[in-house]
Amino acid sequence: MTENPESAPSRTVRLGLLGCGTVGGALVELVAERADDIAARTGVRLVVSRVAVRDVSRDRGLPLGDAVVTDDPAAVVAADDVDVVVEVVGGLEPAHALTVAALSSGKPVVSANKELLAHHGAALFELADAHGVDLLFEAAVAGGIPFVRPLRESLVGEDVTRVVGIINGTTNYILTKMTEEGWTYAEALAEAQALGYAEADPTADVGGFDAGAKAAIIATIAFGVAVSAADVHHEGITEVSADDIATARRLGYQIKLVAVAERFDDGSVAVRVHPAMVPDAHPLAAVRDSFNAVFVEGRAVGDLMFYGRGAGGGPTGSAVLGDVIDAAVNLTKGAHASLGTFGEVTLRPQSELPAACYLAVEVADRPGVLATVAGVFGAHGVSIRSMEQVGSDTDATARLVFITHVAREADVEATLDELRSLDVVASIDSVIRVLGDA
Amino acid sequence: MTENPESAPSRTVRLGLLGCGTVGGALVELVAERADDIAARTGVRLVVSRVAVRDVSRDRGLPLGDAVVTDDPAAVVAADDVDVVVEVVGGLEPAHALTVAALSSGKPVVSANKELLAHHGAALFELADAHGVDLLFEAAVAGGIPFVRPLRESLVGEDVTRVVGIINGTTNYILTKMTEEGWTYAEALAEAQALGYAEADPTADVGGFDAGAKAAIIATIAFGVAVSAADVHHEGITEVSADDIATARRLGYQIKLVAVAERFDDGSVAVRVHPAMVPDAHPLAAVRDSFNAVFVEGRAVGDLMFYGRGAGGGPTGSAVLGDVIDAAVNLTKGAHASLGTFGEVTLRPQSELPAACYLAVEVADRPGVLATVAGVFGAHGVSIRSMEQVGSDTDATARLVFITHVAREADVEATLDELRSLDVVASIDSVIRVLGDA
Repeated sequence: MTENPESAPSRTVRLGLLGCGTVGGALVELVAERADDIAARTGVRLVVSRVAVRDVSRDRGLPLGDAVVTDDPAAVVAADDVDVVVEVVGGLEPAHALTVAALSSGKPVVSANKELLAHHGAALFELADAHGVDLLFEAAVAGGIPFVRPLRESLVGEDVTRVVGIINGTTNYILTKMTEEGWTYAEALAEAQALGYAEADPTADVGGFDAGAKAAIIATIAFGVAVSAADVHHEGITEVSADDIATARRLGYQIKLVAVAERFDDGSVAVRVHPAMVPDAHPLAAVRDSFNAVFVEGRAVGDLMFYGRGAGGGPTGSAVLGDVIDAAVNLTKGAHASLGTFGEVTLRPQSELPAACYLAVEVADRPGVLATVAGVFGAHGVSIRSMEQVGSDTDATARLVFITHVAREADVEATLDELRSLDVVASIDSVIRVLGDA
Repeated sequence: MTENPESAPSRTVRLGLLGCGTVGGALVELVAERADDIAARTGVRLVVSRVAVRDVSRDRGLPLGDAVVTDDPAAVVAADDVDVVVEVVGGLEPAHALTVAALSSGKPVVSANKELLAHHGAALFELADAHGVDLLFEAAVAGGIPFVRPLRESLVGEDVTRVVGIINGTTNYILTKMTEEGWTYAEALAEAQALGYAEADPTADVGGFDAGAKAAIIATIAFGVAVSAADVHHEGITEVSADDIATARRLGYQIKLVAVAERFDDGSVAVRVHPAMVPDAHPLAAVRDSFNAVFVEGRAVGDLMFYGRGAGGGPTGSAVLGDVIDAAVNLTKGAHASLGTFGEVTLRPQSELPAACYLAVEVADRPGVLATVAGVFGAHGVSIRSMEQVGSDTDATARLVFITHVAREADVEATLDELRSLDVVASIDSVIRVLGDA
């Protein structure tokens, strides 16, 4: 929301930054470049007044003007000349204590910290409300993509039933290169590390933990219940093979790491991160390289998708800037954006979740085996949508690739257990969920 | 923005609907279904108190409760028990007079009327501001897609340089069927009419006028200058042939009707609607059937895309509902969302606009012709990115297909004029712009 410049004369709002790395630095530059235009459009003039960094002696080459640079973040939060606190330091502590201190003293906070919000989101949103100030966090969920605000505001009246996100750029880059260039997982990971997309220890990305934290925040605001990172089921991409990708391509799918937040008719909720086969005709299939996208299913609005850059200084800084302007304008009005209150979440057990699955099974290459294997699916109530035999590793075995209709995960597990016990089944090499309608 | 239910007790906000067709009916149903949930989330209880329709005797089968149904829309605007006016009647008059009357009497207006806003948008936004009330119009631009609010609010600090939209579902459906099913234009149009996507007179859709009106609104809010429908250059899809589509497919493009709003470094603006070859790897290429999408290019945020349903009762009703909640919450706070003021637009002449082009030229099939034709491009400063010879209609001629680099439209026109004057050129069959970086 923007303030009418004619009804309220331009007012200066002073920002205190906690952290000045990639995102903080991008914000400092954006504020310097865009302050005049923002003042003309909104009536609010943004100024960075204080910045807390670890090493005050380092020259960052940033247009910091008269801003005080300090190594004491608590002093920035407490300073009289800081109206809005921008938390771009990351991690749980001291970010949590600093955010609580800022909100408790009546200062709005803009945060890009997914870890903080995935662990303490609902409590912090309620704390902000209790003190009548904003806690805004667009940059914490999908980088530069305006998604949190449309979900909180445009869709507040909509019955959102499912959100499916490609919200980790590193894994999407790796899977895109495996698909389009035929690279192995190890080759694609090494290139992602060389480009700075992946850390030396890539676990947070490739294990699905980064996407899981973001999915917890999405579920919290989409469904109005307190979901934390610990409530999210994670499966990463380390087991996705070149074979899986080749088969997926042939069958008309792209393998993507998706975060799925669902609410069922009984009010229960499930949040899971896992590789999925996404049909080529689905809009998420076209999300390539390090791009992110969030796909929303609502009862009235139908399907929506929000696409853009999930990381990087410019995009993330742009999202922080949008929130900073919102908080600053609200401050001049004495208003704030509330998320309301959050109920306790009822998690639906993993075993009860619906999923269609792709399964690759290595079986003895002799008559009658297919009937035996198909019979096992049927006995557990898992119906088969398609089956094909593909090239095998050995002469003695055949490789069968199945795609099932939507089934309970427990029934799929029981099918797999029984298949593994059969003499004619040499191995089950892949189990990947298929993104579908349920 | 949502109000804290704890800090403000639930307050009833009464809606007066002007029109009760597909969108109005969907809104009435959504309000009835969602009122409790909306009250819990926002502290505002929505009630439809009055509805103006043409035929009061018709039973619409809607949950209208105690709402007064009348054929006098001016009375709905003036009624003491109407707090927010919802204009879903369409057309220029009486919608314009009613909207002016509502805003002038201090009542917020939610409008789904693209025609009204494309003709009078900037003046109405300023009128709303002058009276300190909201004029919200999410549904007027891209149906159910939350795009206007993210553009107005999330991206208010962003330097948006170009917006490219697929914002007419009818033409996207027709082009998708021509591409994927091999239908002719006439066949696809007939099916679109049978499905109710296209009118008996399809000119507004296939001529690009519907998309042009929406593009004028997008340019106005993206660039802060008053752009009206009359400022938009239109080319429709009626000349797109099955040949063009087949060639596009082979070269790795999808033909789409795009609306392009650009701002150049000198502050000048251009808005045009035309068919374009969209590279397969571009996110807009994957927008199929009657779906819409808006692609935004910003200097800091990079590329963004917003995708969803551009029409239909549910999606459009959902967008209207989001605006109604916003207006209702703002009303309880005495706040409103301003768009600021609008400068006069400086339109960049069509001849000065940049475009890469696809050209299909029928030439005499004899040695030296390609060199002659290529020389004409070079003489006008138009450089060729790719050329191929494809099957021709006759033995005596060859068909050359060119894709140029980005060039001034005037230079492309001069090239075409000179080509037409050559004896060796039998005809120029297609000129379609190629969506690229400039």
